[in-house]
Amino acid sequence: MPVYSAPLRDFRFLLEDVLQYDKYANLPGFADAPLDVATQILDEAAKFTAGTLLPLNGIGDKQGCTWTPEGVKTPPGFKGAYKQMVESGYVSFSSDPTYGGQGLPAVLNVAVNEMVSATNMAFGMYPGLTHGAYSAIHEAGTPEQKEMYLPKLTSGEWAGTMNLTEPHCGTDLGLLRTKAVPQADGSYKITGQKIWISGGDQDLTDNIIHLVLARIEGAPAGVKGISLFIVPKFMVNADGSLGARNTATCVGLEHKMGIHGNATCVMSYEDATGYLIGKENEGLKVMFVMMNEARLGVGLQGLAMSEIAYQNAVDFAKQRLQGRSLTGPKNADGPADPVIVHPDVRRMLMDAKAFNEGARAFLLWTALYGDLSHKHPDDALRQKANDYMGLMTPVLKAYLTGEGFRHISDSLQVHGGSGFTEHYPASQFMRDARITLIYEGTNGVQALDLVGRKLAANGGRAIFAFFNEMDEWIGANTGDAELQPFVDALATAKAQLQDGTMWLMQNGMSNFDNAGAASHDYLQLFGVTALTYMWAIMAKTALAKKGDADPYYATKLVTGRYFITRMAPEGAMHLTKLKTGADAVMALAAEAF
Amino acid sequence: MPVYSAPLRDFRFLLEDVLQYDKYANLPGFADAPLDVATQILDEAAKFTAGTLLPLNGIGDKQGCTWTPEGVKTPPGFKGAYKQMVESGYVSFSSDPTYGGQGLPAVLNVAVNEMVSATNMAFGMYPGLTHGAYSAIHEAGTPEQKEMYLPKLTSGEWAGTMNLTEPHCGTDLGLLRTKAVPQADGSYKITGQKIWISGGDQDLTDNIIHLVLARIEGAPAGVKGISLFIVPKFMVNADGSLGARNTATCVGLEHKMGIHGNATCVMSYEDATGYLIGKENEGLKVMFVMMNEARLGVGLQGLAMSEIAYQNAVDFAKQRLQGRSLTGPKNADGPADPVIVHPDVRRMLMDAKAFNEGARAFLLWTALYGDLSHKHPDDALRQKANDYMGLMTPVLKAYLTGEGFRHISDSLQVHGGSGFTEHYPASQFMRDARITLIYEGTNGVQALDLVGRKLAANGGRAIFAFFNEMDEWIGANTGDAELQPFVDALATAKAQLQDGTMWLMQNGMSNFDNAGAASHDYLQLFGVTALTYMWAIMAKTALAKKGDADPYYATKLVTGRYFITRMAPEGAMHLTKLKTGADAVMALAAEAF
Repeated sequence: MPVYSAPLRDFRFLLEDVLQYDKYANLPGFADAPLDVATQILDEAAKFTAGTLLPLNGIGDKQGCTWTPEGVKTPPGFKGAYKQMVESGYVSFSSDPTYGGQGLPAVLNVAVNEMVSATNMAFGMYPGLTHGAYSAIHEAGTPEQKEMYLPKLTSGEWAGTMNLTEPHCGTDLGLLRTKAVPQADGSYKITGQKIWISGGDQDLTDNIIHLVLARIEGAPAGVKGISLFIVPKFMVNADGSLGARNTATCVGLEHKMGIHGNATCVMSYEDATGYLIGKENEGLKVMFVMMNEARLGVGLQGLAMSEIAYQNAVDFAKQRLQGRSLTGPKNADGPADPVIVHPDVRRMLMDAKAFNEGARAFLLWTALYGDLSHKHPDDALRQKANDYMGLMTPVLKAYLTGEGFRHISDSLQVHGGSGFTEHYPASQFMRDARITLIYEGTNGVQALDLVGRKLAANGGRAIFAFFNEMDEWIGANTGDAELQPFVDALATAKAQLQDGTMWLMQNGMSNFDNAGAASHDYLQLFGVTALTYMWAIMAKTALAKKGDADPYYATKLVTGRYFITRMAPEGAMHLTKLKTGADAVMALAAEAF
Repeated sequence: MPVYSAPLRDFRFLLEDVLQYDKYANLPGFADAPLDVATQILDEAAKFTAGTLLPLNGIGDKQGCTWTPEGVKTPPGFKGAYKQMVESGYVSFSSDPTYGGQGLPAVLNVAVNEMVSATNMAFGMYPGLTHGAYSAIHEAGTPEQKEMYLPKLTSGEWAGTMNLTEPHCGTDLGLLRTKAVPQADGSYKITGQKIWISGGDQDLTDNIIHLVLARIEGAPAGVKGISLFIVPKFMVNADGSLGARNTATCVGLEHKMGIHGNATCVMSYEDATGYLIGKENEGLKVMFVMMNEARLGVGLQGLAMSEIAYQNAVDFAKQRLQGRSLTGPKNADGPADPVIVHPDVRRMLMDAKAFNEGARAFLLWTALYGDLSHKHPDDALRQKANDYMGLMTPVLKAYLTGEGFRHISDSLQVHGGSGFTEHYPASQFMRDARITLIYEGTNGVQALDLVGRKLAANGGRAIFAFFNEMDEWIGANTGDAELQPFVDALATAKAQLQDGTMWLMQNGMSNFDNAGAASHDYLQLFGVTALTYMWAIMAKTALAKKGDADPYYATKLVTGRYFITRMAPEGAMHLTKLKTGADAVMALAAEAF
């Protein structure tokens, strides 16, 4: 079984010291979970995830899901664990109390979900997608739809899915063919095939509420003719009881590199009964409510998998005795030193540690803005928070999964040959995590979303607010000798990001291919800058605790210095690359490949 | 089945134009295969690998090897393909004619082996390791041993293996416990367990010659007490016929992330009969003959897998219709454009293409030096060639596998969700290739070998020769306007590598941890520089062919310009990182991880 120690100390540091969680005690949800309660909640979640989900992680990988004509069976143990998860309230955690949710802050939910994803990513996807379906219905459903579906989705008694992809259409949803034929009673008959539907069928819940993109007969071609439908697996009677089986069926499971514990279904809809949600032909707008939430969840998976991969690499590196330190034996009584003494092993572990802690800060910082965007009374702050959510979502999704994967691969490398065998969990972590760079919009799509939409939105209001925030921090914190390296690193990173942004503004509009060619490196530069900012804030906080007896703060500073010394220099390379533009990238004719 | 088109045009360009292969027509082996013959040989090898090995690649992955009490069964079809490979002469390709080999140049063998590894990496490991055993016996065997084993290893009728690793000892061979007890007849009884033995048992050959590291009773502890033994699976009678079954047995197969078609065995030696090869306690010296050869072979796998992964990504990107070009439709009559129009897809494909072609040049360039080191009459050139082989081996092994893996992962990414399914070969390429960063010495071990041994050997003679060679090239080629960007890029790269080398000399001796902490980035910088040099040479060659009707040369220049524009900037980042030294890397106490 993998080792895993939940990053509770980090959560506490981030909530209490860095984000000053208690400042928001007057906001809904925060009032129900002041810091000491929040800490208890996270402690309990740590026990649940380590005790219940972690032991099922390898089983899920090795046994996978099974398709039967009666339905998909999840791996042994998943059903019991899911029941426990529902009963413990983790599914209803931050949902609307109107429908039975606990209304707790999203920033806490992110912390819980990191532990869920780390201990069992494939399992965590089931409730994760349910929450997406919940959000879409909460946002766009009629009062009757909310009444009918939200309580059961909130509690986790029912699950939800997202049905976008068809065999010929993934990113380009304008091509989709699934059709919806209006019926006299106001419902629709949905017919089509959807693929890669996570949790499309399973044996965890009594019902599954599929949210399905389809084209109403006669609707315009392209993305302007797409509507969203609620298609329950079992029809729901007016009294809430389950009725007939709908003709929405999982006809096969996908064979995948990883996440074997999650049922990735080929779904067949044959005149299945569906109900329009939101307006006709505006399905994508509603779908993006789910999608944006899912993207943050995927970024979180990138961190979560990087964290557990790192922890297992550390465990191995401390136990595996091989060779001697270059500077003299560190375990003189043993036959050899643990491999953690070797600088190149350290490099890989420090890379992962500095990334993980920076990424965790970035996620919680953003999630708090998510709370503020809904709950804060100040209009200007709500707007800024909303702007930030839009701007940071593609960065969190792509940077945390892309870099996370790099550190997961390094963590496998720390194991040497053992990492390549299936006796250690490193291989599963890598195989599972590989999907995070792809689903809910490939990382290339995230980069385009960032440079093509999010930068320009509202005249660049979001990115300029971010520049201002960093400038103010730099101005306010210059002068302290110990903090200064962080201030300088942030000033450099921020200047690079600004330089890259200006380059995009000047060159991306005249030739869109320049924006496309620069997008990946721009997003990477953004990620490096955001993590540099997080490390600057954390360093300031840790320095303020210098006298504290807890060695946590000193370790935090050492890790932060590693980041600004060893990892921040990646920003300059990305800036150089992005400014080369489209010429080199597009010079070769497609036939010459 | 994966698509694969052997890079025959590249081989021809490199052999004929870049390396001027025909200049060496007077050397042994080269005389037997002048350029037109060499071209035919490679054409035939392309047909064999695409026609015979490629169709078995997916079968090998899905069906894998099977352990039975009677021995290990390779996947269906492997036996027939191996027979065909032996009959076609690919196993004996560059072996010594004294023992039935064809004595063909290693530079051609590398080209053949790239095609073998690309079309079926797991399969190619069987003959690959045989050649390693052949080389060790050829180098250190007694005349009788050579007579007994080399003809059958040369022909491929028998296979060979390398037995180094034990459960508690991989990189640190000084810890090994397998013991050898001298017998009255001059043989030894070998007892111990070896793990991760590729091809430790199989059903392809009549006999298997295991080369086994063991410690003779009473030998000194550590690496100074290790000897190497020949341990045949079946005893060999004086007349060459097979005798009794030796007590060298595969007791289990490893469950691995990839290369399922290769039998990775747990080997048990129980009083197995073995014969000392080379001198007592000097086993590592002989083992390194095999090891260095194997390392070059692994670097080659890194390129080969990157090439076939790239080709399949191109194939997908040309067929998959999704979205429209940012600069207007490129396939206006179709429902969408092929994804190859998107700049970020191009970026990944160009990265891979520019890497692959540079890496191929680097491999063939080095392999030619391998030929020259044995065959050239000029002492000074033989010495330089030998120095280069030592210096380039760790770079080829680690840079080509590490970067190759990055491009393989990108090639999977080009497939979107399809890449994560096992319906496309991208997942297998990635799972197979992951081992190349680990086996035959992890890439971290390669980096240490480079900075700790190879740089300093003979007072730095090898690296200074390389600097001189680049300086001379820069001096001789300055002035041509079209070539100048390549000259400038090489001057920058070479100056960075020299800077990094000087930093290591000044800081790595006083604190070995500085060398260790810098080693990975130094090796990366070395790799970028070597590929920049290769691209400079190739660009010059291609420019000289400017009037040629073949569009190959123009494509080569475009690809080279991409490399120097988009990829060479990675060198500066590695230089910055390596010069930060050990402080940040080693600051954290092991307990604090």
